[in-house]
Amino acid sequence: MFSKILIANRGEIALRIQRACREMGIKTVAVHSTADADAMHVRLADEAVCIGPPTARDSYLNVAAILSAATITGAEAIHPGYGFLSENAEFAETVEEHGIAFIGPTAQHIRTMGDKISAKTTMAALGVPLVPGSDGGLPDIATARAVAARVGYPVLIKAAAGGGGRGMKVAESEEALEEAWNVARTEARAAFGNDEVYLEKYLDKPRHIELQVLADTHGHVVHFGERDCSLQRRHQKLLEEAGSPALTAEERNVIGRTVTDALKKMGYRGVGTLEFLYQDKQFCFIEMNTRLQVEHPVTELVCDVDLVREQIRIAAGEKLGYKQSDITFRGHAIECRINAEDPKTFTPDPGLIKVFHPPGGLGVRTDSALYSGYRVPPYYDSMIAKLIVHAPDRDAAIARMQRALDECVVEGVKTVIPLHRKILADPEFRKGDYTIHWLEEFVARQAG
Amino acid sequence: MFSKILIANRGEIALRIQRACREMGIKTVAVHSTADADAMHVRLADEAVCIGPPTARDSYLNVAAILSAATITGAEAIHPGYGFLSENAEFAETVEEHGIAFIGPTAQHIRTMGDKISAKTTMAALGVPLVPGSDGGLPDIATARAVAARVGYPVLIKAAAGGGGRGMKVAESEEALEEAWNVARTEARAAFGNDEVYLEKYLDKPRHIELQVLADTHGHVVHFGERDCSLQRRHQKLLEEAGSPALTAEERNVIGRTVTDALKKMGYRGVGTLEFLYQDKQFCFIEMNTRLQVEHPVTELVCDVDLVREQIRIAAGEKLGYKQSDITFRGHAIECRINAEDPKTFTPDPGLIKVFHPPGGLGVRTDSALYSGYRVPPYYDSMIAKLIVHAPDRDAAIARMQRALDECVVEGVKTVIPLHRKILADPEFRKGDYTIHWLEEFVARQAG
Repeated sequence: MFSKILIANRGEIALRIQRACREMGIKTVAVHSTADADAMHVRLADEAVCIGPPTARDSYLNVAAILSAATITGAEAIHPGYGFLSENAEFAETVEEHGIAFIGPTAQHIRTMGDKISAKTTMAALGVPLVPGSDGGLPDIATARAVAARVGYPVLIKAAAGGGGRGMKVAESEEALEEAWNVARTEARAAFGNDEVYLEKYLDKPRHIELQVLADTHGHVVHFGERDCSLQRRHQKLLEEAGSPALTAEERNVIGRTVTDALKKMGYRGVGTLEFLYQDKQFCFIEMNTRLQVEHPVTELVCDVDLVREQIRIAAGEKLGYKQSDITFRGHAIECRINAEDPKTFTPDPGLIKVFHPPGGLGVRTDSALYSGYRVPPYYDSMIAKLIVHAPDRDAAIARMQRALDECVVEGVKTVIPLHRKILADPEFRKGDYTIHWLEEFVARQAG
Repeated sequence: MFSKILIANRGEIALRIQRACREMGIKTVAVHSTADADAMHVRLADEAVCIGPPTARDSYLNVAAILSAATITGAEAIHPGYGFLSENAEFAETVEEHGIAFIGPTAQHIRTMGDKISAKTTMAALGVPLVPGSDGGLPDIATARAVAARVGYPVLIKAAAGGGGRGMKVAESEEALEEAWNVARTEARAAFGNDEVYLEKYLDKPRHIELQVLADTHGHVVHFGERDCSLQRRHQKLLEEAGSPALTAEERNVIGRTVTDALKKMGYRGVGTLEFLYQDKQFCFIEMNTRLQVEHPVTELVCDVDLVREQIRIAAGEKLGYKQSDITFRGHAIECRINAEDPKTFTPDPGLIKVFHPPGGLGVRTDSALYSGYRVPPYYDSMIAKLIVHAPDRDAAIARMQRALDECVVEGVKTVIPLHRKILADPEFRKGDYTIHWLEEFVARQAG
C-alpha cells in the first residue's frame, strides 16, 4: 500500500480523499493555489505545497508544478479527484512516466472515453446500447430518411464535429426532415468548417441515469447500481438520488451486467461512471466519466462502500475481494449540492462565510470544506457543500433531507438551499416524476 | 399518529427527538429553563415554553410546569429523553392521567425497574440470569459458606440495605470469609441500622454489556443486540461500542432470546436496556433502564434503525411491523462522548464555545446541540456532543473515529477529546481487551 498520496485537487473532494487516506494510514500531500492557502484541505493535510497563482490554469491544472510537488514530497501516488486534471490523459501518462501511480484508469482509457465519438463506438462494440440512430455520418438525405423511419420520429440531426448545440436540429416528422437537414448542415459548416451530420432518435423526456462501476487490475468488475441525476440546470447536476425512482431492481441488474461485461472486455481499471439517457425503459449510453463523480456519496450510502478507499486499493494493485452478489442496495440516498449562488439567478456569490453550521444526527452526511470564517474564493466552482442523507425509503429520505436543510446554516453568501427546499416540497418531485428538463422548467415556473 | 409532541429535556437529546419528530411530520414543543433560552433545542422547535429558573429541580424536573406547557400548547404526547424525569414513575402516571401519552413504558414497569432489588427479583423470575449468589439475605455464616462454595471464590458480601460500597467486603477464599462476613455486618449495622447481608460471586474483571430491546403494545418484542459500555469512569460511560469486541453472534442470539422472552412475559412497552456484567461467558443482570440511552446511536448505525421513531410509533399504538429475523447487524459502531471537562482532572469546564466545527464525511454522525457562540451553562451535564462512527469492522471504525476526532474543533472550553485520542491509540483498547476497570486504570496511568 502507498505510504503517501498527493491530492491534486481542492475543496470538498480534496478533503474527501484526505479522509480516506487518513483512515487507511496514508500520509497526504495537499497542493494549493495562493488563493487557497487557508483552505481546509491545506489545513488538514500532512504536508502542503503551493503550486501557483489563483487561476486554475496556473495551479490546479499546472502539471509541471504538481509533478514537482509530488517528487519533492516523495508521494507515491496522485489522486486527481474530479474536474481539473482528472480526465487528462497526458497528465495520467506523465504521472506514470515519473514512476508515480495515477489513481484512475490508464491514459489509453481516459483518452478513448474523453472523445465522445470514440467512447460511443467503443461501448457499442462492447454491447452497450446507444441512442438509436445512424452509424456515423450520413451521405445524403435519402439515407437520413431511411434511418429516421427506422428509429422513429422525432429525430435529431447533429453536426459530427459539433458541440454546444450548434449544428443541431430536431425534426418532429418526415415532412420536417429536409429542412432540419439543410439547416443543420449549414450551421455545421459555418461553425466547424465541416458539414457532416448524423441522426439520432430524439429523446423528448429522458432521465439521466448513470451506473457506478469499479474494476480491479485482476479482471474483476462490479457495479454499484445507478444514480438518477436528471435534476440538472444547464447540464449542471443539482440533486442526485440512489436508486432512481424510475428503475426496477431487475432493470438495474440487466444494465449492470451489460456494463460490467463491457468493462471486463475493455480491461478497465478503477472507478468509472457510464452515463445514460433513459426513456421508455431503454438505456442509451451518452458518455463515460473515467473518474470519481461529485455524486458518489449517494452510492456509498446505499451500497455501504467507500469508493475512494476502493480506488486507492485498486491503484495499489489489490484485488476487489468481493463479488457482484455481495453488493446489496439498502434504502435510499439523496444528495443536495449546496452552491454559493443566488437561488433565483444562479449568479455565483463567493465571499466570507460568517457562519457555517452543518446539519447532524441520524442518516445525515456532510461533505464540505467550509468553516466559519472561511472566504470562498471567486476563482473556482461555486459548490461549497454536499448534504447527503440516507433513509429506509425515498419518502423518509426526502423528509430527512428537508430537516437537514432546515438545520443547515450558511451565513455570508447566498446559496441554493431555498431552491432545494422548494424542489423537495414539489409534488412531481415527490412522486419521482421528472426528466432532465424538469429542473429548468421548475426554475422557470418559480421565476414566472 | 401524534400531531404535536412536547420534549421534556434539553441539549443533544432534545434535538435528537426533535429530528425524529420533524422527519415524521410531528410538531415539537421545547421546554427550557431561563438558562437555556438560546439553546439549539429551543431555536429549532416549533414552539418553546420557559418552565423555570436554571436549577433542574425548578425547570426540567418541574412536573407542574411541564404539564402546564403540554396543556397550553396542546401536545398529545411527552418524550422525556434520558435523565431528568425519564424514569420517574409518578411523572409518567401524572402525564397519562392528564390524557397525554407518555413516550415510554407504563409507570408500573418504571417503578419495578427503578428499584434495583425488585428489578432483579422480577428479571430472575422471568429467567434472566443474575450474578450467582444467595437468594436474598443470609441467616448465618454456615449458609454463607455453603453459597460461596457453590458460586466459587472470590465472593462479595453486601449489606441488604446497602449502597455506595458501605457494608461491602470481598473474600478471596474460604479462609477470608468469616472476617469479611463480620466486617460487612458491622459496617452495615453502623451505616444502615440493619446488619442483614447477602453474598454474590465477585466479578473481578467484568465487562459492562447491555442489550437494547423494543416492545410494542401488541405483544411483539425484539432486541437490537448489545452495546459494550465497559469504558466508564466513576460509573459514567465515556466510549461505547456495538457490537462488543468480546461477544460472538451466537452469544448475542442466546442472551437476546432470554431478554425478549422475559419482556414479552412482562408485557413491557417501548425501548429498554438490560444492563449486564459479563465475565467468563456469563451474563449477570444488574439493572434495567426503562428509557432511551445516551449511547443508542451505536445501535442505530449497526442495526439501521431509528430508535426514537420506533418509540414514538409504539407510543401511538403502532405495531413493530418486523420480526427479530429482520434485524441484522452490519459493521461496527463507536461513540465518543465529548464532555466539556478537563481531560486530566475531569473538572467541568462550561463557558463560551468560540468555535464548534464537527467532523464530516462518510460514516460519521454528530449528535450535538452546540454551535459557535453558544455558552455552555454550568447547571447541567457536561456532555456537549456525541461523535459516532460506523465502518465495516472494528479496526476501520477506530481509524474513522481517530480521523473524526482530528477534524473536530471545539474552542473555548476544555474537552475530553485528547483522552479519547489516547484511548483509541492504546494497544489494549485496540485489541478490545478491557473490563469496567480499564478506563480508571488507564486514566491513572496517564496521570502517573
